[in-house]
Amino acid sequence: MAIITVIGSGVMGSAMSFPARSNGHTVRLVGTMLDREIIKHAKETGYHLTLERSLPDNVVFYQLEELDLALDGVDLIIGGVSSFGVEWFADEIICRLPSEIPVLSVTKGMLLNSDGSLTSYPAYYALKKPDGDFCAVGGPCTSYELADSDHSHVGFCGRNMDSLLMMKELLESSFYHVNLTTDVEGLEFAVAIKNVYALAVSLAVGLSLDRDDTLHYNSQAAIFTQSVREMRRLLAIFGHADDNIVFGAGDLYVTVYGGRTRKLGTLLGMGQSFKSAMQELDGITLESVVIASRVSKAILTLIDKGKASRTDFPLLLHVYDIISKDITVNVPWSEFG
Amino acid sequence: MAIITVIGSGVMGSAMSFPARSNGHTVRLVGTMLDREIIKHAKETGYHLTLERSLPDNVVFYQLEELDLALDGVDLIIGGVSSFGVEWFADEIICRLPSEIPVLSVTKGMLLNSDGSLTSYPAYYALKKPDGDFCAVGGPCTSYELADSDHSHVGFCGRNMDSLLMMKELLESSFYHVNLTTDVEGLEFAVAIKNVYALAVSLAVGLSLDRDDTLHYNSQAAIFTQSVREMRRLLAIFGHADDNIVFGAGDLYVTVYGGRTRKLGTLLGMGQSFKSAMQELDGITLESVVIASRVSKAILTLIDKGKASRTDFPLLLHVYDIISKDITVNVPWSEFG
Repeated sequence: MAIITVIGSGVMGSAMSFPARSNGHTVRLVGTMLDREIIKHAKETGYHLTLERSLPDNVVFYQLEELDLALDGVDLIIGGVSSFGVEWFADEIICRLPSEIPVLSVTKGMLLNSDGSLTSYPAYYALKKPDGDFCAVGGPCTSYELADSDHSHVGFCGRNMDSLLMMKELLESSFYHVNLTTDVEGLEFAVAIKNVYALAVSLAVGLSLDRDDTLHYNSQAAIFTQSVREMRRLLAIFGHADDNIVFGAGDLYVTVYGGRTRKLGTLLGMGQSFKSAMQELDGITLESVVIASRVSKAILTLIDKGKASRTDFPLLLHVYDIISKDITVNVPWSEFG
Repeated sequence: MAIITVIGSGVMGSAMSFPARSNGHTVRLVGTMLDREIIKHAKETGYHLTLERSLPDNVVFYQLEELDLALDGVDLIIGGVSSFGVEWFADEIICRLPSEIPVLSVTKGMLLNSDGSLTSYPAYYALKKPDGDFCAVGGPCTSYELADSDHSHVGFCGRNMDSLLMMKELLESSFYHVNLTTDVEGLEFAVAIKNVYALAVSLAVGLSLDRDDTLHYNSQAAIFTQSVREMRRLLAIFGHADDNIVFGAGDLYVTVYGGRTRKLGTLLGMGQSFKSAMQELDGITLESVVIASRVSKAILTLIDKGKASRTDFPLLLHVYDIISKDITVNVPWSEFG
């Protein structure tokens, strides 16, 4: 049995304790400075306040100041911060990790560089520590359902197949299924771009509800189809293998069916402006919106350089107009294709 | 304004009267011998018994014996039979149609030839009348939602782009959006194979409901992801362009969200045998099951010939085992990838 230390006790990092404990490993869950209440409560009760579930028996909880203790003798480190914690993880935590231990990051998204290019989080971490072994999880898996042992199928990506095989050996379980790929940038890109399109498909949810209070699926499927079309074009333009579309489409499917991104898209589809919808969502910045914005800016940079055509991305550009210019929904149906 | 005659007054053929009438065309709806009650009732009331909606004003209804009258001066013929009526349409109707008038078929599916190959309905019709101009509709569009003017986006496919442009001109409306392609076999294949995978994703719906009476989406998304993966492989093995995956994925999305295919897959996912589930569905043969079976047999023929690998299609083969060997569900999660 191995020792697995999760750094960042948000919902997804914490949910990883379920497959890890089901395989009998020692699991140590370390909170960030933002997770203090979660860890305090979990130490007392075993219950996770934001995942809203009791974590598996024998998970051991640590506050951030106990990090070194949590890393003692560790075999695998899981990076469990949200995308808002990536810079902090890179600047404050990576230097404290033992070099020889691989890191599996559950954080989804990409960073936007000043030249308009995108960088995956594993590549960003490797810039901070070139001899580090940084891998990531992609694919359709929500934390709540992973915690409920719903069958989930993900991709682990990294540069080193031996590390990936070790991670799969440790974490794959009867309900957590893992494929492996060394195409880090392709997988991370595919699951990042789905954020734009999850908002897009959710617009149709709102359009339906705005009209007659029932759900319609033709319009959702029309946008889903165009989403897959635009995602394939994005993969091609950014130089990624086209088979990554399976993760993009699958991750889009699961994102449309729950959570705050769907809620936001639905409000926008019902005619609210972005500012108004964000107020209704308590003003909390959504990771999905930040990532959608980064991806959109990256493609706009290519359009400005003449390396991509506006007409290939009517949906992406409309979503970006909604979130950046506060215009109301007006789906460009006739431009699809 | 044009005269459009729809032959076959099932739900999809009849729903085509909505975009056609919204553009102001004359619409004549002709029932088959199976539609006698539908036409009789519609003549009296304007209400369609199986679509469960009033058809647009001024649609004119015809019994089959009035076919010649309905074809007088026609500009476009829409073939509205179900896949069970394809042979009848080919053998009894095509010879009565004016040669110079193009036919747009709404029937989805493919025919299985004795050598294990598949033929699209437009190609099959052309065998019966080589100088005929047979086109088809593909893409995600359910009849009920089309009748409710939900935004729907479809592909028209045919060999003759001039005919396709004419059809788009006649039928595209503020809510019915049309792309055109001359890749008939590719589009028809993509939307045929989705039948296997709609059953597959619905298995996860049943697995969830069987467990705790709530829906989970990780498992649906896992199967959706594998479905897109296998559909891409099928397109490649059968020699079709890979961009047809957008229609396959979009059509899969809409099929999973309603209708009898989802119901059947759900019952199977809850552990019922195929025979038992079909009994619960009143024993009526589903088009989707017939098409799923044909597609599966086609790929099995290629596997037998050594031209395809079993390991590339774990999901398809499992669905086929369920419907052909009456085994109960046991999703091969670990074989995905």
